[in-house]
Order: sequence, then C-alpha cells, then structure tokens
Amino acid sequence: MPLSPTLELAMDLIQRPSVTPADAGCQALMMSRLAPLGFRDEHMRFGDTDNLWARKGQDGPVLAFAGHTDVVPTGPEKNWAHPPFEPVIENGYLYGRGAADMKGSLAAFVTACERFVANHPNHRGSIALLITSDEEGPAKDGTVKVVEALEARNEKMDWCLIGEPSSTHQVGDVIKNGRRGSLHGYLTVHGTQGHVAYPHLAENPVHKVAPALDNLANEFWDNGNDFFPPTTFQITRIESGTGSNVIPGECLVHFNFRYCTENTAESLEERVVAILDRHRLKYDLQWHLSGRPFLTDKGALVSAAQSAIRTVTGRETELSTSGGTSDGRFIAPTGAQVVELGPLNATIHKVDECVNAEDLDTLSDIYEQILIELLA
Amino acid sequence: MPLSPTLELAMDLIQRPSVTPADAGCQALMMSRLAPLGFRDEHMRFGDTDNLWARKGQDGPVLAFAGHTDVVPTGPEKNWAHPPFEPVIENGYLYGRGAADMKGSLAAFVTACERFVANHPNHRGSIALLITSDEEGPAKDGTVKVVEALEARNEKMDWCLIGEPSSTHQVGDVIKNGRRGSLHGYLTVHGTQGHVAYPHLAENPVHKVAPALDNLANEFWDNGNDFFPPTTFQITRIESGTGSNVIPGECLVHFNFRYCTENTAESLEERVVAILDRHRLKYDLQWHLSGRPFLTDKGALVSAAQSAIRTVTGRETELSTSGGTSDGRFIAPTGAQVVELGPLNATIHKVDECVNAEDLDTLSDIYEQILIELLA
Ligand SMILES: [Zn+2]
Ligand SMILES: [Zn+2]
Repeated sequence: MPLSPTLELAMDLIQRPSVTPADAGCQALMMSRLAPLGFRDEHMRFGDTDNLWARKGQDGPVLAFAGHTDVVPTGPEKNWAHPPFEPVIENGYLYGRGAADMKGSLAAFVTACERFVANHPNHRGSIALLITSDEEGPAKDGTVKVVEALEARNEKMDWCLIGEPSSTHQVGDVIKNGRRGSLHGYLTVHGTQGHVAYPHLAENPVHKVAPALDNLANEFWDNGNDFFPPTTFQITRIESGTGSNVIPGECLVHFNFRYCTENTAESLEERVVAILDRHRLKYDLQWHLSGRPFLTDKGALVSAAQSAIRTVTGRETELSTSGGTSDGRFIAPTGAQVVELGPLNATIHKVDECVNAEDLDTLSDIYEQILIELLA
Repeated sequence: MPLSPTLELAMDLIQRPSVTPADAGCQALMMSRLAPLGFRDEHMRFGDTDNLWARKGQDGPVLAFAGHTDVVPTGPEKNWAHPPFEPVIENGYLYGRGAADMKGSLAAFVTACERFVANHPNHRGSIALLITSDEEGPAKDGTVKVVEALEARNEKMDWCLIGEPSSTHQVGDVIKNGRRGSLHGYLTVHGTQGHVAYPHLAENPVHKVAPALDNLANEFWDNGNDFFPPTTFQITRIESGTGSNVIPGECLVHFNFRYCTENTAESLEERVVAILDRHRLKYDLQWHLSGRPFLTDKGALVSAAQSAIRTVTGRETELSTSGGTSDGRFIAPTGAQVVELGPLNATIHKVDECVNAEDLDTLSDIYEQILIELLA
C-alpha cells in the first residue's frame, strides 16, 4: 500500500535532524508545497532561529496554523530501537524524533491546505502558517518575534490553531483552549556568615527563610475557575552553605507559579513580597514572567474544532487548560483565538518517539474540516 | 638585647613550615631539648601524622602538656606583610604562622620544663608532653590515637594542660576548662520528582522539610548551666533542585549542634527524629559525633592554673567553655583533668599571625609555676 501524502511528508521532515534551533531545511520543504497553492513566503530569521510566515490571501478572517520544526535532542542514539532521524513505519506506528512533537502535525497542516485549496479555490479570508525553529529552546527569537513583526505592521490573526500534541488516548479527544501563566521567582535571602561555634555573631538565612517557605508552600492562592485549575506554587531550587562548621551567609531559592486567571503576575508578586516582609527577611527578589495565562473560551475556532473532530471521528472533545506552556502564550495576547490540537502526547521528548500512522491522516482530515468550517 | 630562650625556640619552630599534617622536624627539635632533662622519647606515627609522647618519670601523678606542631595553611604569601615562615620580632610582637597557635606555647612548655627540672631535680610524679601534627586537620591520626595507645597499656594522665590560645585581652585572663560537644547531622528528605506543571504527580521535598526546619531552628534545647552556654542548632547546608521547571526529588540538609552537658548526643538525636517524624517526612539521617562535651570543674589542675596566673601576673582568670572544639575532647574521656591555657587568640588562622613577645616569657613562667604547684 503506498504511503499517504501526509505520512510521506512527515517522514521527509523527520529525516532532517532539526534539533533546536536548527530548521535543517524543513521550512523550505514545507514552502515548496505551499507556494504552488498561492502562499507567499516570508522568511524571518532572528538570531539563530528560522521562522516562516506563509500566507495565502489578502483579506480577513485569517486562520493560522502554528508550530515548530525544531525537535528536542535525542540523547544517546544507542538507546533508540529506531534511529531518531531514520523514520520508519512499524506495526502501524511512525517512529522518529518529532513524529508526535510536531512534524506529523506540520505535514498534516500542509496536506490539509492542499486538499482544501484544491476543493475551494475561491475560499474566503486567508490561510497562514507561522512556523518557528525555536519552540523547544529559549523561545526568544521564534514565535514571539514573528508576532511582534506582525503586530508592528498591524497584521492580525483571527484564529490560530497550534499543532502541539494535545490528545491523550485518541486523536482529538482533548484540545487545549488555554494555558496557565508561568511566573518564575529568584530569591536571595541575606544573613550573616559565621562559625557554628559562635551563632550569636551570625544570622542564619536558612533559619530565617524556612517559615516563609512554609507559608508560601501552604498559601491559598485561589480556587481556580471553570476553565483553569487552581494556581500552584513550587520551589524548584534551594541552595545555601557548604556544610562543615560554617553558618551560611546567603540562601538562594527559585520558585515557579503556574497560575490561572483568578490571579495576575502582579497580584502574585505582591502577595509573595507581603509574605517575605511579614517574616522580616533581608532579600533580593527577581521575577521572570514566562507567559501570562490565556483562554479561548467560546467562539468560532473552538466550535469549528469541536465540530470538525465530531465530523471526522465521531468523538466529543474535552477542553483543557492543563499542562505546560506553549507558544500560544505569545499569540493569545494579540487577541487571536488560540486552540491547540494535535496527536497523542504519550511519547514526546522520549526515546523511540512515535505516532499512530493513521492518526496523522485523521489529523489532516480534521484540519481540512476546520478550514471548511471557517473559510469555505 | 639577646632573645629569651623561649622566643629563640619559638622562632626556630616557626621557621619549619609544618602545615598539617607535616611536622617538619619540630618534634625532633623539642626532643633534643627534652632528652637532656631525662624525658624518654616515644615517637608514634599513625598514617601521615607524627606524634610525640615524651615522659620524664615513672610514677604518678602525671602532668602532661599537650599541643600540636602543625599549622593551618598560609593562603597566598603575598598577603602577608611578614613572610609566614620567616619569624621576626617587630615592635614587641613575634610574627609568623603558628606564633600564637601554637608554637609559642610549645616553646614555653620546653623552657618551663628546663627551669623546673634544673631547680627541682627530684620532683615528684611525672612530666609528659603529648604533641601531634594533626590537630588542625582531620584529627584522626593524632591525639586520639596516642590516647588510645596509652589507654591500651593503662598509662594515665592525671592533669593535662593544653597550650591552645585561650586568652582574650591579656595572657592568662581566660582559661578553658571544658568544651561543648559537637554533633553533625546529615539529612536527606525524599520526595517525588516531577514537572512544575503537574504538581499533583510530584511531592516537593523542600515544601515538606521547610516547617520541620523551622521547628528545629526554634526548638528550645536547654538553658545551658553554670558551666556551659545553651545548646545551639545551626543548619550549615541545604541543597535541592536545579531550578528550571522541575520539582526536586530530594533535599539535602546538613546541620550541627554545639551542645552542653544538659543534653547528650543521644538525647539530641532522639529529639531531632521526633520532630522529623511529627512532620511525616520520608528521610535518611546520618550522624557524626565530632566530640562529646567535657568539663574540668574544681580540682587541683584548675586551682594550680588560677594560682599560677595570679602569682606570675597578678590576674584573676576567668573559666570558660565557649568556642570551638579542641583535642581536649579526646583526652577528657580518659578521666584526666583538662585545661587549656595559652596566649591571645586574636590573630590565629589569619595573615600576619603574631603574639606579644613578652607574653611568651610570661606564659613560660606560668607553666613553670604550675609545675611547681603540682609536682615540686
Ligand atoms: Zn512541541
Ligand atoms: Zn591550635
């Protein structure tokens, strides 16, 4: 049986070893398929990151497919039963680094566009692809920069469908219609170093910070809401002292909030400062806001995705805002509706990453159906 | 003016660069002065450590002078105004590594013995010197091993005078008649590693341990007593996690007790375990007992030291048990009375370590007077 166009393209993409921030020709390969359909190629390189903004059409509404060509490192290749950059289909599964996250989705984007444009040459609005090679890395020169460039010239996306692997047990069973925010805190508590034999001449920063950390860990931040689980606080690092007989002079604490729309980064920062001050700590505190929470509640994109999944698979889909951050955090603030819909995520970032081969064809059909619902 | 014998010998010792565990010939130099007085030389080498047990006389009571020929490292010699191993007297101060800790005391031991034996050739009891080259290092092959060897053949010290720099403002103003115990704890708290986005799948060991550390830091251990300050607890190290988005799987905590005779190592261990268990922690805990507390209250040695200081300097001396550990922790358990009496400790372990030159002669007179009080 010959391979479907989606699987063929997915394998072509997987054999390019595009470990972050390398694109390894993936975007050019995709563009070679999109250009004949009428997509205009805009290559945006920032730093060491390749980005592709490809658009077909001048008018709104704009439906953009978003994703990344980069993949996470393989680790020692000897641990792979299937070499990571030599895609192969075995027992109905396509193996290779990026099969699930997310070269399969990229291939499904392209083939869905091909069929849709063939069947609806005079569709309304515009179709676009926003593809980066730096989603798995620092994410500083990727989607965020493309969005900035589009915003600067007032080019808007109305709907953005991100191909991240959202499904849990069957393709389309879960779509993500939002993500929690992520806020990092970097705390240094100052004490006074000294010898353990003379504690009255020292001030132990670990002793000072312990009750404050207990308070932070047990603070009630919020109850979540209909769309989000409650905000969580986690200490990710603590470091102080070298042992022996020295009372440490400083204590470093790193922590992270995953937060819902019942709080803001600002409200959390204020509340942390209030707790630290209540314990009369001397400290420095830096913040890094990795992404604000976003939510695409009801609306045309969520409806189209749910309806398309039902049409293609017969499945009712679950809306979820759980899990880690994604590039949606950069797109949602523009006002676009954002949804993540992709294959099963069971093997992503692992050895012998794989995806059910038929699922990629199903995914391509779902994407096509979404195009039909929104732009036919 | 010619140098006193004590200063001459001190300078001879200082110019030997006996950084732990090196003795650099110091013990042989001392022995060359003691042998003519009738001291029998017993060289005990354990591992890389040279130890000297030199005794004059067969009978009890035994008064032993104890000390060490090793010195702590100099650090960069360019930071010294006076090269550390080129002893020099300037403005009445003898400069050099070990001047105060404790080659000055060693020289004073020897010259005190010389004068005492010359004046009291038929003194009662025995005089001994217990000298190691590993007091400033791991202290595993030094005094502790010599004491074991003596115990094994049932050779007893009745009185032990350690030459550690005990004085604060004037020579003889403070003598140490005991030390607190030192107990180290090495705690590993076990949690479950995970991703910060999925805290329900993880268990953060830092969150679990924080309230327990707060309890430990604020626990009332005891009030001390007439001889000792209260027991103190200090965390000396805490380490967990690497930051980024990972909830750590383990948290290491090192801590130290300096404890008085109102507690024992065993009672403290029990109380720590009770606190950890109250917080339902999963943990491993190792202990290292660095030294039990010891105390030489009233008795002939303390009286002789106080009386000798009064006779030589007119000073009333203060008894103290403060400060770090010393080799007294190894000697006191044999039942010997132990007292530390030496020069001012202001510059020990620092660059340009020094001692008042006249103080060394005074110290030699005090040691001689103690010999007179106890053995004349
Ligand atoms: Zn991805
Ligand atoms: Zn010393």
